[in-house]
Amino acid sequence: MIGIFDSGIGGLTVVRALMEELSGYDIVYFGDTARTPYGNKSPDTVIKYALENTEFLLSKGAKIIVMACNTASSVATDDVTKRFDVPIFEVITPAVELSVKTSKKLRVGVIGTRATIKSGIYSKKIRDLKPDTKVYSYSCPLLVPLVEEGWLKKPETTMIVKKYLHPLKVRQIDTLILGCTHYPILKNIIQNKIGKRVNIIDSSVTVAEKVKGFLEKHKDIDSLLSKNGECRFFVSDVTEQFEKIAGATLKRNVILEHVRM
Amino acid sequence: MIGIFDSGIGGLTVVRALMEELSGYDIVYFGDTARTPYGNKSPDTVIKYALENTEFLLSKGAKIIVMACNTASSVATDDVTKRFDVPIFEVITPAVELSVKTSKKLRVGVIGTRATIKSGIYSKKIRDLKPDTKVYSYSCPLLVPLVEEGWLKKPETTMIVKKYLHPLKVRQIDTLILGCTHYPILKNIIQNKIGKRVNIIDSSVTVAEKVKGFLEKHKDIDSLLSKNGECRFFVSDVTEQFEKIAGATLKRNVILEHVRM
Repeated sequence: MIGIFDSGIGGLTVVRALMEELSGYDIVYFGDTARTPYGNKSPDTVIKYALENTEFLLSKGAKIIVMACNTASSVATDDVTKRFDVPIFEVITPAVELSVKTSKKLRVGVIGTRATIKSGIYSKKIRDLKPDTKVYSYSCPLLVPLVEEGWLKKPETTMIVKKYLHPLKVRQIDTLILGCTHYPILKNIIQNKIGKRVNIIDSSVTVAEKVKGFLEKHKDIDSLLSKNGECRFFVSDVTEQFEKIAGATLKRNVILEHVRM
Repeated sequence: MIGIFDSGIGGLTVVRALMEELSGYDIVYFGDTARTPYGNKSPDTVIKYALENTEFLLSKGAKIIVMACNTASSVATDDVTKRFDVPIFEVITPAVELSVKTSKKLRVGVIGTRATIKSGIYSKKIRDLKPDTKVYSYSCPLLVPLVEEGWLKKPETTMIVKKYLHPLKVRQIDTLILGCTHYPILKNIIQNKIGKRVNIIDSSVTVAEKVKGFLEKHKDIDSLLSKNGECRFFVSDVTEQFEKIAGATLKRNVILEHVRM
């Protein structure tokens, strides 16, 4: 199976993208809802959680791992890759690669959680590929709770998005990376406030394309993955609100199975 | 020592109140910042965390326990009281007792996290004391992240507070219980939006008064508590942001000691 984990249910946007790119592949998802969110926590704590989550997915039969969480991808990729001997995908690199390909003005904006932005990983990776690129990164910690409350069309949400994006607008970026799995849910408002000409990169879509490309090249690993169209969703805590968001993200009824970490 | 725990650092408002009521008493605090927040999580998960936190405080020498967290107080009080043989204080009852004493119109509002409001504990306890009281309870899940971001004077915060309080204003309450340790930090905005005539009850103050009253009556337990004016603050995760809020709440430099749960 393809194993995917996230700090909560935001990572279901990655499941949605994988289901489109790799229709029929079996998926096992783990959302760490008992310890969510990761975005305001320290690297050490996030690394510990990422290792535990990966171990859980492997115990459920995962043969490759997708870290759907930008915060975990930012701070825990090295540790997870060193510890486990399976292909590990993170959401940063695919978005970075696309941004340097598409940004003509070499002015890229990145928004994410406090931990993701503080790690500086997007700036570093973008500059590694194209040193002349100007990267402007801002954390937007209130967007996750706004999405989780379902405040998608409230004027307060629009005002807060506008406030967060203002410094990026001033910098005249032509490309904006959504560095958090929750943000695609606000894509319309973000596009509206940053301007129509800015190309928005959704890391949940780019990572799914990356996994697809990898499996096309590595038939040995692809052959290990079962393809019965089955999905299982494990979470470390179940509440009605989590079930509601999960259903809305995948646009179908989702059964969340509780597992204690 | 007096042991206090909270889901994070919001509970430092209770430490502040205890320092005023019981000056010189030694305090050991535990903030579960690695798993914060509790307010959107299920009762089972919150109970598990509350038991672990209490055990930790007892291992550090606590002789009485104050659950500074409204969510834990709402769902975990019975389990914690049954498991441990020390006096356990929760933040609900003192606020409830004061509300029925002071509400003349018997119309009381309560605001809190989703888990606290869903537990129905405030309504139940208020009606147990005064069955004729009308209780109107609403969850305000965005207030905790707004406080944690330090957005205390932003127009978006004022708008969101106004939106949350609107149904309570319509009900013409004369008393409002702040059923979350973070809310006292927004007290001025809340007072402004709910109206000057509404009496606001701050559960961090009422629980400190309750502990003081208890120790005056139970000299045997009071004699177990050391009084060197020492405070230790343990957290399950340390970040700059946590340290910043801790310092701002207690209005002094706070050293957070990291402990892995």
